[in-house]
Amino acid sequence: MLQIRPEDIEKKSFEILTSKMDEERLKFYSADELLVVKRAIHTTADFDYQYNVIFQNNAIESLKHCIQSDSMIFTDTNMALSGINKRILTGKFCITPHCLISETDTIEYAKKNNTTRAVASIDLAYQMRDKKQSSNNEKKVPIVFAVGNAPTALIRINELLYKYKPDFIIAAPVGFVNVIEAKELIKQSNIPAIICDGNKGGSNVCAAIINAVLLQMA
Amino acid sequence: MLQIRPEDIEKKSFEILTSKMDEERLKFYSADELLVVKRAIHTTADFDYQYNVIFQNNAIESLKHCIQSDSMIFTDTNMALSGINKRILTGKFCITPHCLISETDTIEYAKKNNTTRAVASIDLAYQMRDKKQSSNNEKKVPIVFAVGNAPTALIRINELLYKYKPDFIIAAPVGFVNVIEAKELIKQSNIPAIICDGNKGGSNVCAAIINAVLLQMA
Repeated sequence: MLQIRPEDIEKKSFEILTSKMDEERLKFYSADELLVVKRAIHTTADFDYQYNVIFQNNAIESLKHCIQSDSMIFTDTNMALSGINKRILTGKFCITPHCLISETDTIEYAKKNNTTRAVASIDLAYQMRDKKQSSNNEKKVPIVFAVGNAPTALIRINELLYKYKPDFIIAAPVGFVNVIEAKELIKQSNIPAIICDGNKGGSNVCAAIINAVLLQMA
Repeated sequence: MLQIRPEDIEKKSFEILTSKMDEERLKFYSADELLVVKRAIHTTADFDYQYNVIFQNNAIESLKHCIQSDSMIFTDTNMALSGINKRILTGKFCITPHCLISETDTIEYAKKNNTTRAVASIDLAYQMRDKKQSSNNEKKVPIVFAVGNAPTALIRINELLYKYKPDFIIAAPVGFVNVIEAKELIKQSNIPAIICDGNKGGSNVCAAIINAVLLQMA
Protein backbone atom coordinates (compact mmCIF):
# COMPACT_ATOMS: atom_id res chain seq x y z
CA MET A 1 0.00 0.00 0.00
CA LEU A 2 1.33 3.41 -0.96
CA GLN A 3 2.02 5.47 2.18
CA ILE A 4 0.74 8.90 1.33
CA ARG A 5 -0.80 11.81 3.21
CA PRO A 6 -4.51 12.27 2.44
CA GLU A 7 -3.91 15.79 1.14
CA ASP A 8 -1.41 14.42 -1.38
CA ILE A 9 -3.65 11.66 -2.75
CA GLU A 10 -5.43 13.85 -5.26
CA LYS A 11 -2.17 15.32 -6.53
CA LYS A 12 -0.64 11.86 -6.93
CA SER A 13 -3.82 10.60 -8.55
CA PHE A 14 -3.71 13.36 -11.17
CA GLU A 15 -0.03 12.63 -11.83
CA ILE A 16 -0.78 8.97 -12.44
CA LEU A 17 -3.76 9.57 -14.67
CA THR A 18 -1.88 12.21 -16.66
CA SER A 19 0.94 9.72 -17.26
CA LYS A 20 -1.62 7.27 -18.69
CA MET A 21 -3.23 9.79 -21.03
CA ASP A 22 -2.75 9.96 -24.78
CA GLU A 23 0.00 12.54 -25.45
CA GLU A 24 -1.88 13.91 -28.43
CA ARG A 25 -4.86 14.70 -26.22
CA LEU A 26 -2.70 16.42 -23.62
CA LYS A 27 -1.79 18.88 -26.39
CA PHE A 28 -5.33 19.09 -27.80
CA TYR A 29 -6.94 21.02 -24.94
CA SER A 30 -6.16 24.38 -23.33
CA ALA A 31 -4.70 24.22 -19.81
CA ASP A 32 -8.06 25.04 -18.20
CA GLU A 33 -9.94 22.59 -20.42
CA LEU A 34 -7.44 19.88 -19.59
CA LEU A 35 -8.24 20.30 -15.89
CA VAL A 36 -11.88 19.55 -16.70
CA VAL A 37 -11.01 16.50 -18.78
CA LYS A 38 -8.66 15.19 -16.11
CA ARG A 39 -11.25 15.60 -13.38
CA ALA A 40 -13.78 13.64 -15.45
CA ILE A 41 -11.18 10.85 -15.71
CA HIS A 42 -10.38 11.18 -12.01
CA THR A 43 -14.06 10.68 -11.18
CA THR A 44 -14.56 7.65 -13.43
CA ALA A 45 -11.13 6.12 -14.15
CA ASP A 46 -12.49 6.09 -17.69
CA PHE A 47 -9.97 7.41 -20.22
CA ASP A 48 -12.63 7.81 -22.91
CA TYR A 49 -13.25 11.24 -21.40
CA GLN A 50 -10.00 12.45 -22.95
CA TYR A 51 -11.67 11.97 -26.33
CA ASN A 52 -15.31 12.89 -25.78
CA VAL A 53 -15.42 16.18 -23.89
CA ILE A 54 -16.34 19.09 -26.17
CA PHE A 55 -15.86 22.71 -25.17
CA GLN A 56 -18.24 24.89 -27.14
CA ASN A 57 -18.04 28.67 -27.54
CA ASN A 58 -15.41 29.75 -25.06
CA ALA A 59 -16.93 27.32 -22.58
CA ILE A 60 -14.66 27.70 -19.57
CA GLU A 61 -14.69 31.50 -19.58
CA SER A 62 -18.45 31.51 -20.16
CA LEU A 63 -19.10 29.24 -17.18
CA LYS A 64 -16.73 31.26 -14.99
CA HIS A 65 -18.55 34.42 -16.01
CA CYS A 66 -21.91 32.85 -15.07
CA ILE A 67 -20.57 31.86 -11.66
CA GLN A 68 -19.17 35.35 -11.09
CA SER A 69 -22.47 36.91 -12.18
CA ASP A 70 -24.73 35.43 -9.52
CA SER A 71 -26.31 32.97 -11.95
CA MET A 72 -28.91 30.37 -11.02
CA ILE A 73 -27.62 26.83 -11.48
CA PHE A 74 -30.00 23.91 -11.95
CA THR A 75 -29.02 20.23 -11.98
CA ASP A 76 -31.31 17.47 -13.24
CA THR A 77 -30.53 15.04 -10.41
CA ASN A 78 -30.03 15.26 -6.67
CA MET A 79 -26.86 13.21 -7.11
CA ALA A 80 -25.27 15.91 -9.28
CA LEU A 81 -26.48 18.56 -6.82
CA SER A 82 -24.94 16.60 -3.99
CA GLY A 83 -21.60 16.28 -5.80
CA ILE A 84 -21.10 19.98 -6.53
CA ASN A 85 -18.42 21.71 -4.42
CA LYS A 86 -20.56 23.95 -2.22
CA ARG A 87 -17.56 25.20 -0.27
CA ILE A 88 -16.63 27.20 -3.36
CA LEU A 89 -19.95 27.71 -5.16
CA THR A 90 -21.94 28.70 -2.10
CA GLY A 91 -19.15 29.68 0.28
CA LYS A 92 -17.25 31.92 -2.10
CA PHE A 93 -19.81 32.87 -4.76
CA CYS A 94 -23.01 32.75 -2.68
CA ILE A 95 -24.76 30.58 -5.26
CA THR A 96 -26.98 27.79 -3.93
CA PRO A 97 -27.57 25.34 -6.77
CA HIS A 98 -31.03 23.84 -7.26
CA CYS A 99 -32.48 20.52 -8.30
CA LEU A 100 -36.23 20.60 -8.87
CA ILE A 101 -36.75 16.96 -9.94
CA SER A 102 -38.28 15.77 -6.65
CA GLU A 103 -40.10 18.96 -5.68
CA THR A 104 -43.86 18.78 -5.18
CA ASP A 105 -44.40 21.64 -7.64
CA THR A 106 -42.47 19.74 -10.29
CA ILE A 107 -44.42 16.52 -9.80
CA GLU A 108 -47.72 18.44 -10.01
CA TYR A 109 -46.62 20.42 -13.07
CA ALA A 110 -45.55 17.22 -14.84
CA LYS A 111 -48.87 15.52 -14.11
CA LYS A 112 -50.91 18.55 -15.14
CA ASN A 113 -48.99 18.94 -18.40
CA ASN A 114 -48.65 15.22 -19.09
CA THR A 115 -44.89 15.45 -19.32
CA THR A 116 -41.81 14.16 -17.50
CA ARG A 117 -40.43 15.61 -14.30
CA ALA A 118 -37.20 16.41 -16.16
CA VAL A 119 -39.13 18.57 -18.65
CA ALA A 120 -41.16 20.15 -15.86
CA SER A 121 -37.90 21.01 -14.05
CA ILE A 122 -36.69 23.03 -17.03
CA ASP A 123 -39.95 24.98 -17.35
CA LEU A 124 -40.05 25.71 -13.64
CA ALA A 125 -36.37 26.69 -13.57
CA TYR A 126 -37.05 29.37 -16.17
CA GLN A 127 -40.07 30.55 -14.14
CA MET A 128 -37.88 30.81 -11.02
CA ARG A 129 -35.27 32.74 -12.96
CA ASP A 130 -37.86 35.14 -14.41
CA LYS A 131 -39.26 35.73 -10.93
CA LYS A 132 -35.82 36.50 -9.51
CA GLN A 133 -35.12 38.81 -12.44
CA SER A 134 -38.36 40.68 -12.02
CA SER A 135 -37.78 41.13 -8.29
CA ASN A 136 -34.32 42.35 -9.25
CA ASN A 137 -35.50 45.31 -11.40
CA GLU A 138 -35.10 43.15 -14.52
CA LYS A 139 -31.34 42.98 -14.03
CA LYS A 140 -30.25 39.90 -15.95
CA VAL A 141 -29.84 36.71 -13.92
CA PRO A 142 -27.88 34.14 -15.96
CA ILE A 143 -29.20 30.57 -15.96
CA VAL A 144 -27.02 27.45 -16.11
CA PHE A 145 -28.33 23.92 -16.68
CA ALA A 146 -26.20 20.97 -15.58
CA VAL A 147 -27.69 17.83 -17.09
CA GLY A 148 -26.14 14.47 -16.18
CA ASN A 149 -29.08 12.17 -16.59
CA ALA A 150 -32.12 13.16 -18.62
CA PRO A 151 -31.83 13.66 -22.37
CA THR A 152 -35.42 14.97 -22.25
CA ALA A 153 -34.10 17.95 -20.25
CA LEU A 154 -31.80 18.84 -23.15
CA ILE A 155 -34.61 18.30 -25.66
CA ARG A 156 -36.82 20.68 -23.65
CA ILE A 157 -34.08 23.30 -23.44
CA ASN A 158 -33.85 23.08 -27.23
CA GLU A 159 -37.65 23.33 -27.72
CA LEU A 160 -37.75 26.52 -25.67
CA LEU A 161 -34.91 28.26 -27.48
CA TYR A 162 -37.41 30.46 -29.39
CA LYS A 163 -38.20 32.00 -26.00
CA TYR A 164 -35.31 31.29 -23.63
CA LYS A 165 -31.61 30.97 -24.24
CA PRO A 166 -29.66 29.50 -21.33
CA ASP A 167 -26.32 31.12 -20.56
CA PHE A 168 -24.52 27.82 -20.15
CA ILE A 169 -25.25 24.11 -20.46
CA ILE A 170 -23.41 21.08 -19.21
CA ALA A 171 -24.73 18.35 -21.49
CA ALA A 172 -23.66 15.05 -19.97
CA PRO A 173 -26.60 12.64 -19.84
CA VAL A 174 -25.56 9.00 -19.95
CA GLY A 175 -27.34 6.18 -21.71
CA PHE A 176 -28.54 4.54 -24.87
CA VAL A 177 -31.89 6.13 -25.73
CA ASN A 178 -32.00 9.65 -27.24
CA VAL A 179 -28.78 10.62 -25.46
CA ILE A 180 -26.62 11.14 -28.55
CA GLU A 181 -29.45 12.87 -30.41
CA ALA A 182 -30.14 15.24 -27.50
CA LYS A 183 -26.46 16.20 -27.32
CA GLU A 184 -26.51 16.92 -31.07
CA LEU A 185 -29.26 19.50 -30.46
CA ILE A 186 -27.03 21.28 -27.97
CA LYS A 187 -24.13 21.22 -30.42
CA GLN A 188 -26.36 22.82 -33.05
CA SER A 189 -27.61 25.43 -30.58
CA ASN A 190 -24.30 27.27 -30.39
CA ILE A 191 -24.91 27.97 -26.71
CA PRO A 192 -21.74 27.97 -24.60
CA ALA A 193 -21.54 24.42 -23.32
CA ILE A 194 -19.43 21.55 -22.12
CA ILE A 195 -20.69 18.39 -23.79
CA CYS A 196 -19.77 14.76 -23.11
CA ASP A 197 -20.16 13.40 -26.60
CA GLY A 198 -21.56 9.93 -27.24
CA ASN A 199 -23.29 7.70 -24.72
CA LYS A 200 -21.17 8.56 -21.71
CA GLY A 201 -21.66 11.07 -18.92
CA GLY A 202 -23.59 10.90 -15.67
CA SER A 203 -24.41 12.86 -12.55
CA ASN A 204 -20.92 12.30 -11.17
CA VAL A 205 -19.27 13.52 -14.38
CA CYS A 206 -21.61 16.50 -14.48
CA ALA A 207 -20.60 17.49 -10.94
CA ALA A 208 -16.92 16.83 -11.71
CA ILE A 209 -17.04 19.23 -14.67
CA ILE A 210 -18.50 22.03 -12.56
CA ASN A 211 -16.05 21.32 -9.75
CA ALA A 212 -13.06 21.42 -12.10
CA VAL A 213 -14.07 24.95 -13.11
CA LEU A 214 -14.89 25.98 -9.53
CA LEU A 215 -11.47 24.80 -8.36
CA GLN A 216 -9.88 27.13 -10.92
CA MET A 217 -11.75 29.99 -9.22
CA ALA A 218 -11.12 29.02 -5.59
CA MET B 1 -35.19 11.25 -32.16
CA LEU B 2 -36.66 7.98 -30.98
CA GLN B 3 -40.31 8.50 -29.99
CA ILE B 4 -40.70 6.49 -26.82
CA ARG B 5 -42.78 6.72 -23.65
CA PRO B 6 -40.71 7.71 -20.61
CA GLU B 7 -41.66 4.50 -18.81
CA ASP B 8 -40.27 2.47 -21.72
CA ILE B 9 -36.91 4.26 -21.92
CA GLU B 10 -35.22 2.16 -19.26
CA LYS B 11 -36.46 -1.08 -20.81
CA LYS B 12 -35.25 0.00 -24.26
CA SER B 13 -31.96 1.17 -22.78
CA PHE B 14 -31.33 -2.24 -21.19
CA GLU B 15 -32.20 -3.96 -24.48
CA ILE B 16 -29.68 -1.85 -26.35
CA LEU B 17 -26.89 -2.27 -23.81
CA THR B 18 -27.52 -6.02 -23.62
CA SER B 19 -27.21 -6.25 -27.40
CA LYS B 20 -23.81 -4.56 -27.16
CA MET B 21 -22.46 -6.82 -24.41
CA ASP B 22 -19.95 -9.60 -24.86
CA GLU B 23 -21.93 -12.85 -25.28
CA GLU B 24 -19.46 -14.74 -23.13
CA ARG B 25 -20.09 -12.38 -20.24
CA LEU B 26 -23.87 -12.68 -20.61
CA LYS B 27 -23.37 -16.38 -19.83
CA PHE B 28 -20.77 -15.76 -17.09
CA TYR B 29 -23.08 -14.27 -14.46
CA SER B 30 -26.24 -15.56 -12.76
CA ALA B 31 -29.48 -13.85 -13.79
CA ASP B 32 -29.53 -11.70 -10.63
CA GLU B 33 -25.84 -10.84 -10.94
CA LEU B 34 -26.35 -9.86 -14.56
CA LEU B 35 -28.96 -7.30 -13.49
CA VAL B 36 -26.31 -5.68 -11.28
CA VAL B 37 -23.72 -5.66 -14.05
CA LYS B 38 -26.20 -4.25 -16.55
CA ARG B 39 -27.25 -1.48 -14.17
CA ALA B 40 -23.60 -0.49 -13.67
CA ILE B 41 -23.30 -0.23 -17.46
CA HIS B 42 -26.62 1.63 -17.66
CA THR B 43 -25.29 4.20 -15.17
CA THR B 44 -21.95 4.75 -16.90
CA ALA B 45 -22.28 3.58 -20.53
CA ASP B 46 -18.97 1.90 -19.72
CA PHE B 47 -18.86 -1.71 -20.86
CA ASP B 48 -15.79 -2.47 -18.75
CA TYR B 49 -18.26 -3.23 -15.96
CA GLN B 50 -19.17 -6.49 -17.69
CA TYR B 51 -15.62 -7.63 -16.93
CA ASN B 52 -14.77 -6.11 -13.56
CA VAL B 53 -17.69 -6.76 -11.21
CA ILE B 54 -16.90 -9.54 -8.73
CA PHE B 55 -19.59 -11.25 -6.66
CA GLN B 56 -18.02 -12.69 -3.55
CA ASN B 57 -19.61 -15.29 -1.24
CA ASN B 58 -23.19 -15.54 -2.38
CA ALA B 59 -23.20 -11.77 -2.69
CA ILE B 60 -26.69 -11.08 -3.99
CA GLU B 61 -28.45 -13.30 -1.48
CA SER B 62 -26.30 -11.92 1.34
CA LEU B 63 -27.17 -8.34 0.49
CA LYS B 64 -30.85 -9.19 0.14
CA HIS B 65 -30.73 -10.88 3.53
CA CYS B 66 -29.15 -7.77 5.09
CA ILE B 67 -31.87 -5.56 3.59
CA GLN B 68 -34.58 -7.91 4.86
CA SER B 69 -32.97 -8.00 8.32
CA ASP B 70 -33.23 -4.31 9.19
CA SER B 71 -29.52 -3.72 8.64
CA MET B 72 -27.78 -0.36 8.94
CA ILE B 73 -26.38 0.82 5.61
CA PHE B 74 -23.55 3.36 5.46
CA THR B 75 -22.25 5.05 2.31
CA ASP B 76 -18.96 6.93 2.15
CA THR B 77 -20.32 9.85 0.11
CA ASN B 78 -23.45 11.94 0.10
CA MET B 79 -23.62 11.38 -3.66
CA ALA B 80 -24.00 7.62 -3.21
CA LEU B 81 -26.53 8.25 -0.43
CA SER B 82 -28.46 10.55 -2.72
CA GLY B 83 -28.48 7.96 -5.54
CA ILE B 84 -29.92 5.07 -3.53
CA ASN B 85 -33.54 4.17 -4.30
CA LYS B 86 -35.27 5.30 -1.09
CA ARG B 87 -38.71 4.42 -2.44
CA ILE B 88 -37.75 0.77 -1.98
CA LEU B 89 -35.10 0.86 0.76
CA THR B 90 -36.94 3.22 3.07
CA GLY B 91 -40.49 2.90 1.74
CA LYS B 92 -40.61 -0.88 1.64
CA PHE B 93 -37.88 -1.99 4.06
CA CYS B 94 -37.92 0.95 6.50
CA ILE B 95 -34.15 1.35 6.26
CA THR B 96 -32.80 4.90 6.16
CA PRO B 97 -29.24 4.77 4.84
CA HIS B 98 -26.58 6.95 6.44
CA CYS B 99 -23.56 8.92 5.29
CA LEU B 100 -21.44 10.26 8.13
CA ILE B 101 -18.70 11.96 6.06
CA SER B 102 -19.90 15.54 6.63
CA GLU B 103 -21.29 15.14 10.14
CA THR B 104 -19.83 17.34 12.89
CA ASP B 105 -19.07 14.27 15.04
CA THR B 106 -17.08 12.76 12.19
CA ILE B 107 -15.05 15.90 11.58
CA GLU B 108 -14.25 16.19 15.32
CA TYR B 109 -13.40 12.49 15.62
CA ALA B 110 -11.07 12.70 12.62
CA LYS B 111 -9.27 15.75 14.04
CA LYS B 112 -8.97 14.24 17.51
CA ASN B 113 -7.58 10.97 16.15
CA ASN B 114 -5.47 12.56 13.41
CA THR B 115 -7.15 10.51 10.71
CA THR B 116 -9.34 11.02 7.65
CA ARG B 117 -13.07 11.61 7.74
CA ALA B 118 -13.54 8.40 5.74
CA VAL B 119 -11.79 6.40 8.48
CA ALA B 120 -13.69 8.25 11.21
CA SER B 121 -16.95 7.40 9.40
CA ILE B 122 -16.22 3.68 9.66
CA ASP B 123 -15.40 3.85 13.37
CA LEU B 124 -18.49 5.91 14.12
CA ALA B 125 -20.70 3.64 12.00
CA TYR B 126 -19.70 0.66 14.14
CA GLN B 127 -20.37 2.73 17.27
CA MET B 128 -23.86 3.60 15.98
CA ARG B 129 -24.51 -0.05 15.17
CA ASP B 130 -23.35 -1.20 18.62
CA LYS B 131 -25.58 1.39 20.26
CA LYS B 132 -28.59 0.26 18.23
CA GLN B 133 -27.81 -3.35 19.05
CA SER B 134 -27.51 -2.67 22.76
CA SER B 135 -30.81 -0.75 22.82
CA ASN B 136 -32.25 -3.71 20.96
CA ASN B 137 -31.49 -6.31 23.68
CA GLU B 138 -28.31 -7.28 21.80
CA LYS B 139 -30.34 -8.62 18.90
CA LYS B 140 -27.94 -8.59 15.94
CA VAL B 141 -28.16 -5.57 13.65
CA PRO B 142 -26.32 -6.30 10.37
CA ILE B 143 -24.05 -3.58 9.02
CA VAL B 144 -23.47 -2.85 5.33
CA PHE B 145 -20.78 -0.54 3.97
CA ALA B 146 -21.20 0.93 0.49
CA VAL B 147 -17.91 2.49 -0.54
CA GLY B 148 -17.75 4.34 -3.85
CA ASN B 149 -15.00 6.82 -3.20
CA ALA B 150 -12.52 6.32 -0.34
CA PRO B 151 -10.06 3.43 -0.44
CA THR B 152 -9.11 4.41 3.12
CA ALA B 153 -12.62 3.36 4.19
CA LEU B 154 -11.92 -0.16 2.90
CA ILE B 155 -8.49 -0.17 4.54
CA ARG B 156 -10.08 0.80 7.87
CA ILE B 157 -12.75 -1.91 7.52
CA ASN B 158 -9.90 -4.39 7.01
CA GLU B 159 -7.90 -3.05 9.99
CA LEU B 160 -10.88 -3.55 12.28
CA LEU B 161 -11.64 -7.12 11.20
CA TYR B 162 -10.08 -8.47 14.41
CA LYS B 163 -12.98 -6.80 16.20
CA TYR B 164 -15.78 -6.17 13.70
CA LYS B 165 -16.87 -8.11 10.65
CA PRO B 166 -19.29 -6.26 8.39
CA ASP B 167 -22.17 -8.27 6.98
CA PHE B 168 -21.77 -6.91 3.48
CA ILE B 169 -19.45 -4.57 1.57
CA ILE B 170 -19.81 -2.83 -1.74
CA ALA B 171 -16.21 -2.10 -2.65
CA ALA B 172 -16.32 0.35 -5.55
CA PRO B 173 -13.92 3.23 -4.91
CA VAL B 174 -12.59 4.84 -8.08
CA GLY B 175 -9.12 6.18 -8.69
CA PHE B 176 -5.43 5.65 -9.03
CA VAL B 177 -3.98 5.70 -5.51
CA ASN B 178 -4.46 2.70 -3.19
CA VAL B 179 -7.73 1.77 -4.90
CA ILE B 180 -6.65 -1.58 -6.34
CA GLU B 181 -4.75 -2.49 -3.17
CA ALA B 182 -7.72 -1.67 -0.95
CA LYS B 183 -10.00 -3.83 -3.07
CA GLU B 184 -7.51 -6.71 -2.76
CA LEU B 185 -7.92 -6.53 1.02
CA ILE B 186 -11.66 -6.99 0.65
CA LYS B 187 -11.13 -9.94 -1.70
CA GLN B 188 -8.86 -11.55 0.89
CA SER B 189 -11.37 -10.88 3.68
CA ASN B 190 -13.91 -13.41 2.41
CA ILE B 191 -16.72 -11.12 3.53
CA PRO B 192 -19.77 -11.21 1.25
CA ALA B 193 -19.16 -8.37 -1.17
CA ILE B 194 -19.69 -6.88 -4.58
CA ILE B 195 -16.37 -5.52 -5.79
CA CYS B 196 -15.60 -3.36 -8.84
CA ASP B 197 -12.16 -4.67 -9.60
CA GLY B 198 -9.39 -2.39 -10.87
CA ASN B 199 -9.44 1.41 -10.90
CA LYS B 200 -13.09 1.88 -11.77
CA GLY B 201 -16.15 2.45 -9.62
CA GLY B 202 -17.63 5.59 -8.10
CA SER B 203 -20.52 6.87 -6.03
CA ASN B 204 -22.90 6.47 -8.95
CA VAL B 205 -21.82 2.86 -9.57
CA CYS B 206 -22.07 2.13 -5.85
CA ALA B 207 -25.66 3.41 -5.77
CA ALA B 208 -26.47 1.56 -9.01
CA ILE B 209 -25.31 -1.74 -7.50
CA ILE B 210 -27.54 -1.32 -4.45
CA ASN B 211 -30.45 -0.20 -6.63
CA ALA B 212 -30.11 -3.22 -8.92
CA VAL B 213 -30.54 -5.50 -5.90
CA LEU B 214 -33.34 -3.36 -4.42
CA LEU B 215 -35.26 -3.52 -7.70
CA GLN B 216 -35.15 -7.31 -7.51
CA MET B 217 -36.90 -7.02 -4.14
CA ALA B 218 -39.49 -4.35 -5.06
